Amino acid sequence: MAVETSEPGFPRIEIRKELVDLLDSDRVLHTPEELLVYECDGLTLHSRMPDFVVFPSSTHEVLEIVRLARRHGIPFLARGAGTSLSGGTIAAEGGIVLELSRMNEILQIDLENRLAQVQPGVVNQHVTRAVEADEFYYAPDPSSQVASTIGGNVAENAGGPHTLKYGVTTNHVLALEVVLPDGEVYRLGTAAGDPVGFDLVGTFVGSEGTLGIATEATVRLLHAAPAVKTLLAVYDSVSEATQTVSGIIARGIVPAALEMIDRNTIQAIEAGVYASGIPQDAAAVLLIEVDGLEAGIDQQLEEILEVIRSRQVREVRVAASADERKKLWAARKNAFGAYGRISPNYYTMDGVIPRSKLPEVLGRIESLGREYGLRMANVFHAGDGNLHPIILYDIAREDAREKVMALAGAILRCCIDVGGTLSGEHGIGLEKREFMRLFFSEADLQVMERLKQVFNPDNLANPQKIFPMRRGCGEMSSLSEDSRDRLSRFEEDPEFVRF
Amino acid sequence: MAVETSEPGFPRIEIRKELVDLLDSDRVLHTPEELLVYECDGLTLHSRMPDFVVFPSSTHEVLEIVRLARRHGIPFLARGAGTSLSGGTIAAEGGIVLELSRMNEILQIDLENRLAQVQPGVVNQHVTRAVEADEFYYAPDPSSQVASTIGGNVAENAGGPHTLKYGVTTNHVLALEVVLPDGEVYRLGTAAGDPVGFDLVGTFVGSEGTLGIATEATVRLLHAAPAVKTLLAVYDSVSEATQTVSGIIARGIVPAALEMIDRNTIQAIEAGVYASGIPQDAAAVLLIEVDGLEAGIDQQLEEILEVIRSRQVREVRVAASADERKKLWAARKNAFGAYGRISPNYYTMDGVIPRSKLPEVLGRIESLGREYGLRMANVFHAGDGNLHPIILYDIAREDAREKVMALAGAILRCCIDVGGTLSGEHGIGLEKREFMRLFFSEADLQVMERLKQVFNPDNLANPQKIFPMRRGCGEMSSLSEDSRDRLSRFEEDPEFVRF
Repeated sequence: MAVETSEPGFPRIEIRKELVDLLDSDRVLHTPEELLVYECDGLTLHSRMPDFVVFPSSTHEVLEIVRLARRHGIPFLARGAGTSLSGGTIAAEGGIVLELSRMNEILQIDLENRLAQVQPGVVNQHVTRAVEADEFYYAPDPSSQVASTIGGNVAENAGGPHTLKYGVTTNHVLALEVVLPDGEVYRLGTAAGDPVGFDLVGTFVGSEGTLGIATEATVRLLHAAPAVKTLLAVYDSVSEATQTVSGIIARGIVPAALEMIDRNTIQAIEAGVYASGIPQDAAAVLLIEVDGLEAGIDQQLEEILEVIRSRQVREVRVAASADERKKLWAARKNAFGAYGRISPNYYTMDGVIPRSKLPEVLGRIESLGREYGLRMANVFHAGDGNLHPIILYDIAREDAREKVMALAGAILRCCIDVGGTLSGEHGIGLEKREFMRLFFSEADLQVMERLKQVFNPDNLANPQKIFPMRRGCGEMSSLSEDSRDRLSRFEEDPEFVRF
Repeated sequence: MAVETSEPGFPRIEIRKELVDLLDSDRVLHTPEELLVYECDGLTLHSRMPDFVVFPSSTHEVLEIVRLARRHGIPFLARGAGTSLSGGTIAAEGGIVLELSRMNEILQIDLENRLAQVQPGVVNQHVTRAVEADEFYYAPDPSSQVASTIGGNVAENAGGPHTLKYGVTTNHVLALEVVLPDGEVYRLGTAAGDPVGFDLVGTFVGSEGTLGIATEATVRLLHAAPAVKTLLAVYDSVSEATQTVSGIIARGIVPAALEMIDRNTIQAIEAGVYASGIPQDAAAVLLIEVDGLEAGIDQQLEEILEVIRSRQVREVRVAASADERKKLWAARKNAFGAYGRISPNYYTMDGVIPRSKLPEVLGRIESLGREYGLRMANVFHAGDGNLHPIILYDIAREDAREKVMALAGAILRCCIDVGGTLSGEHGIGLEKREFMRLFFSEADLQVMERLKQVFNPDNLANPQKIFPMRRGCGEMSSLSEDSRDRLSRFEEDPEFVRF
């Protein structure tokens, strides 16, 4: 479904000429055929073609493009690998997409002080690759890390399986160079880490491109834990699995990762090339990793095994080698790719709930799926209550999109009902902006918008992201009728508002 | 030295009447005798009497006071225990001080989801006390924790010895209720943790009261580590001690705390009631703590001991009991109190440097002290390069204040020169605002000021904090001539600017 907006009247020919003057024609895409591939990202439920896609190769060029955009009042946004699952890189009002893949240099590595200075187009995993020989790594590890870039990770405050122990992107970014919509370059934060004055790095990380474009990031490097143990526990009951999660956390153990995979996901994985021999009739699997010093790692593992054995578990596999560990992780990391084998289409959601509500919410998600006649799968960061319900669907079926959107709305409602939140790591983007009202009061939203105004007063930087459409501003974006109904109902019932 | 400002013409009698109508006269202080105790805080080098000190007991009362202040254009600021070391609670332009000691309730404890909802006047250590029977605790532990309050900790983004492993206040605050200068209450963030939309909690924490007043905080609770080991290593050479620090970090060990105490500090401590028998001729002492699961804690300790033994160390003491641990920590925690026994006055500084520069900077601090004819002491968080140089002085001596300020400026310059930053945990406040220009370009400062404008457009919330005085806006605050010279020199040499 296209994001509908009234077509603005940019002087396209003039803008194109200026862009070509700046970058040469091979770095300025403008024909529909060229632009088609940029009309959506990981969120395929929305699309909109940009007017231009350009490939700057330096901060200076980004700056000049932003100045040009400002001069002509044309929207602009940055794009890395286009893996956003919330529509973060969709040009919701057209305009200029700055594709930053040419800004992919690691500028500096300082192992003594444990930091790396990188350009935004550097692929997440390439940071680790550059330092792993010295036993360092960059901690945030979204499932997209083989493709997604540091710039995109910064914009969306990306997480990953190891977020549980090591924190999300915002905990690993020390300083940024940014081009703000005013057409100037600023340096935020310091390599020394501690914020001085306002924490503008913290404000910028996770702002989804609505405050400007990061053109450089100084990130923390961590020393690789000398010892790592990974295990897989197979359950015949989802509730035994979630109670194992609670049991581990209650013991005060913080595993490096504590992931859960449900039956539909297991079946998808086992149908594919990354099959790891998990029994396909299992109800759930936990993938648990502990890391630390060599000393004590076995005892740490033993404590976890004790908790596991205290519940009904069918089978436990402890990886005996690095290869076996990789194989266990491959199953988890390729889950998303695997859904394609069991369903023509799938929609990856993102929500957070208090860990204590896991059994309840997983049950509700399952029955909501039945209610809407759609199959569900789940693969998620159980340790921090960050759910990724997957809606499996076939776009060719009647009303498929509407049903998916309605089910998604019901699931998010359910997360909020139990005291959870709208997003753990994928951002709000276009995807969930209308749900912001379920969560924030009008006044709370206005404070955020006031903040946005400071940096982005003309709303040219990645417009339509995060914030719900204003009443009377035309259509309600691409939410289904059902979601609109829900929103109206919520408006009638102010009790509904949670912070 | 008083903060000089032109006296604004508030309608004092009318304001007092309105405050008394709201709170009754016993909760409104207004005579100079009553106000005297509020003219400074932990930063005794500055002072200014407020016009009123009031004691609200609810969010509603805070709200009404802020609305009243706004109506009359009178500045306001919150105060907890008044332990700020950067002048954060000094009423730089007079006005109303909201003393929040009556808002000291722990509203909710949710152990299952590991969080506590508290009022801002709750003393830091009381949070831990409320949950320690269940083996939980609140991690940020500033040395002031027996007195300082959560509200103040939030304003200053307080750290502490255990910051190294567990992070500073911003890493432990999930949600806030705030009264903004517009006279409205807002809820920022969510108990579920992950920020949705802009990370306004992150923006607010550490904003030093310039964006508004926190009236409630939802903070993370951590499970107490089942095993803790603490040791003290005594050195005859500062460089052997700092190289031990580097050696431990290089091994990939993250101790829970890694503190360093120098000779002058040892002598101060040993002269007092918390003497722990550290030899007074030692050059430096490291206080190191590791925590984790029982399994492996001894091996973790052994790894650290190996590093220690690889350098020249005079003596190592490992605490054999909880009592002995407490005694080792008492020495560290009471260091600040102890300086009073070896010097009539002392000034506690705060700066951060890359860990790799520790030996160099400690040497420079020592020689700067000699150059300015002032004794120095050091007690600091060596593990994260967060220095606390202490300038020992006698205010009765001629030019004492000017010399202290000049030396302090030279030390901060030195931190910045090596790639460090102005503050690790005490904030900028009044103390270091003129040094912001050493660190940020005019443009970078303007971005922050624009952000401040959003929340605090009339500049009534804690004025004069963080930001340097504008040129042409009268005096240069209370910096010494020498510092002013430094600032002018810096303005002549733009190369000087670091981000």
